[in-house]
Amino acid sequence: MRPEQWQQLEAYMQDRMRDSAHDRQHVYRVLNNALEIARDEENVNLDVLLAAAILHDVGRADELVDPAADHAVTGGERAYQLLRQMGYEEAFAAHVRQCIRTHRFRRADPPASIEAKILFDADKLDVCGAIGIARTLMYAGSHGRPLYTQDENGMLRDGAQDTEDTFLREYRTKLEGMYGRFLTRRGAELAARRQAAARGFCTALLSEVEDNADTACAMLKQLVNGS
Amino acid sequence: MRPEQWQQLEAYMQDRMRDSAHDRQHVYRVLNNALEIARDEENVNLDVLLAAAILHDVGRADELVDPAADHAVTGGERAYQLLRQMGYEEAFAAHVRQCIRTHRFRRADPPASIEAKILFDADKLDVCGAIGIARTLMYAGSHGRPLYTQDENGMLRDGAQDTEDTFLREYRTKLEGMYGRFLTRRGAELAARRQAAARGFCTALLSEVEDNADTACAMLKQLVNGS
Repeated sequence: MRPEQWQQLEAYMQDRMRDSAHDRQHVYRVLNNALEIARDEENVNLDVLLAAAILHDVGRADELVDPAADHAVTGGERAYQLLRQMGYEEAFAAHVRQCIRTHRFRRADPPASIEAKILFDADKLDVCGAIGIARTLMYAGSHGRPLYTQDENGMLRDGAQDTEDTFLREYRTKLEGMYGRFLTRRGAELAARRQAAARGFCTALLSEVEDNADTACAMLKQLVNGS
Repeated sequence: MRPEQWQQLEAYMQDRMRDSAHDRQHVYRVLNNALEIARDEENVNLDVLLAAAILHDVGRADELVDPAADHAVTGGERAYQLLRQMGYEEAFAAHVRQCIRTHRFRRADPPASIEAKILFDADKLDVCGAIGIARTLMYAGSHGRPLYTQDENGMLRDGAQDTEDTFLREYRTKLEGMYGRFLTRRGAELAARRQAAARGFCTALLSEVEDNADTACAMLKQLVNGS
């Protein structure tokens, strides 16, 4: 890819994500992940992968305008149009579109080409490990969601039983199951390496919340009823 | 303390924090921490501690109305008024007020009584460990702040050098230095036990972001300039 072509793709991405520094940092991490995974694979069309990685979330803003929109579909279409306008061949633009279209987890339309599989894994890696925990906590904060909920006795509910959206529920029902879903050897390896950090953090979080609760609860009962 | 008195203090706190489930969970964790620390101390006025812990953040909402307000000062005053209205003696209400007034870290007005020191440590414990990381990330998310910033070469800036508010800056300049500031033996012990979780998380986060960046940066240069 020529420098001016890359700069044009990068500028388009930045313009589409101008309000969100977080999302841009995510895009660059996914790009880095994709290149790292690609080193371990053969016959990768690296130009397709570069274009697909840098443009994979350009449809995000469409979901803000229309909640029914699917950013993988609209983003793929936007990438296709941009690449065709820039003079890329139809087959190249269509390949990039297909990578972006299948980067979201969905049973119906799984990633088929090696470039699509790499993009899928590169994006999922950013939900793993400490970075996945950090992004999920920041998302919970930005949407006013709590860390966890408590039952009627003040004891912490373990996520999977939560009836409302909490960080712990997201961790238990989505993040924890992510590690088994990788499609490339290197992607699975990087994910496995990150798993301990995520598990360690959540174990520590739960024990910090719960460790003092039992004793304190007993003390409080005695202090409040005993006088 | 009689059950109906405790219920009245709890109801006042919940009413003052009705819009924020997070803050209420924080209050109950601080209460639990305070009781756990109190077990290790002698001659603690547990009724003063209970009242100070459950009411310690009732001034938070004042800072939303008036950014110049100090929630430790206004919260202490609110607690004093409430306790006097409930029939508590002046000395009791004034002691609770003083605990709440000094629970914030400030060189000028340090916690003096054992109850004030316990409350200070109980509150600071909630900024330590995994729970401290989680609260700081959620706060960053709710204020639209990024995890980190990057320099002109796309490399991650290590927090302390950040010119804007980021999670990493908050961690480096505030959270990391918290562990040496505890005033009670048990508080310091609990904080030290939590330190590894916070450190481990941030080390993992930085390595996940940086590990792929160097190789990817070199690959990208070659791919973009080499054709």
